[in-house]
Amino acid sequence: YAPTRCAAAQTSVEQGILPPCHHHEAVHDPQLVPCTCPLFSCPWEGHLEVVVSHLRQTHRINILQGAEIVFLATDMHLPAPTDWIIMHSCLGHQFLLVLRKQEKYEGHPQFFATMMLIGTPTQADNFTYRLELNRNQRRLKWEATPRSVLECVDSVISDGDCLVLNTSLAQLFSDNGSLAIGIAITTSKVHNAEAEM
Amino acid sequence: YAPTRCAAAQTSVEQGILPPCHHHEAVHDPQLVPCTCPLFSCPWEGHLEVVVSHLRQTHRINILQGAEIVFLATDMHLPAPTDWIIMHSCLGHQFLLVLRKQEKYEGHPQFFATMMLIGTPTQADNFTYRLELNRNQRRLKWEATPRSVLECVDSVISDGDCLVLNTSLAQLFSDNGSLAIGIAITTSKVHNAEAEM
Repeated sequence: YAPTRCAAAQTSVEQGILPPCHHHEAVHDPQLVPCTCPLFSCPWEGHLEVVVSHLRQTHRINILQGAEIVFLATDMHLPAPTDWIIMHSCLGHQFLLVLRKQEKYEGHPQFFATMMLIGTPTQADNFTYRLELNRNQRRLKWEATPRSVLECVDSVISDGDCLVLNTSLAQLFSDNGSLAIGIAITTSKVHNAEAEM
Repeated sequence: YAPTRCAAAQTSVEQGILPPCHHHEAVHDPQLVPCTCPLFSCPWEGHLEVVVSHLRQTHRINILQGAEIVFLATDMHLPAPTDWIIMHSCLGHQFLLVLRKQEKYEGHPQFFATMMLIGTPTQADNFTYRLELNRNQRRLKWEATPRSVLECVDSVISDGDCLVLNTSLAQLFSDNGSLAIGIAITTSKVHNAEAEM
């Protein structure tokens, strides 16, 4: 690999220089995926099996383990665009949580959170993820099927098919500039039979 | 009463002519509340005890009963600003669900949903309301303490302290242009002792 160009899981880049979505480019080997780390123009590509070690080693993305975990995203005040990224190891798979602060409407940053399976879309269909915020006598829960990292996280977020928070809600759920996101993964009932790895 | 100026619970008014929030005006008798029906410039005011009959008779707002109900908001495509309003009778009280389509950012309508207790703020603190959307393998839940109708629904919505849906999410949760909102009211644990009426 090239030396780490972007060492932190949580970083801020200048507006407007979001790299184009790698997945729209031609990929010769369908099993070969580009680096799935959002917001970075990382030239790496490799097989699904080595995506986790690439994210850990090159981008220093941490892994949390357990069926239910809490991820603390700090410094929510950082200017958009900013990504907070964590890997979640659970049920024999690794998932990627992406929390993105982005200005869809100029001057009005919003937070978007979604989970991607580091695996194929067929495997992703076997799971349900839940993101939960809970503070100040308010609770917000989002449940959905994770997407595969073979799909593009940018399009998931631009489609708005994820947990969306306005700044005001993000502040209500934040404590001292940090947002605690409860994450749980379960196997989808319908696919339980196929969920064996 | 004056004859019904605005007969439907679901109506669309021209943009930009939202009436100012009545509750910012001077109210001589603190027990006397203006009409709580949002979006309408209704000259009525009366005591809390008669708000329900005013909403029913003048604004033809329906009442649904039960601890858990489903409200079907139809014609979600109507232009902003539009309000969908229903009363929910539960645990000896009446609650007002307000679903509003509004353009906070020009050209980008969003949906805002909140529940108000037709009662005092102290009474409202005894309850928790839950709004739930469930469709297309996605689920979104919002839980919070209802506000009192003595507070202003406009400020709750402009503060964003409510369930907020972008158009794309609203479409994912809609079926044939209709949004089914599951509503549940419970008494808050902390206040259970005082929750007796």
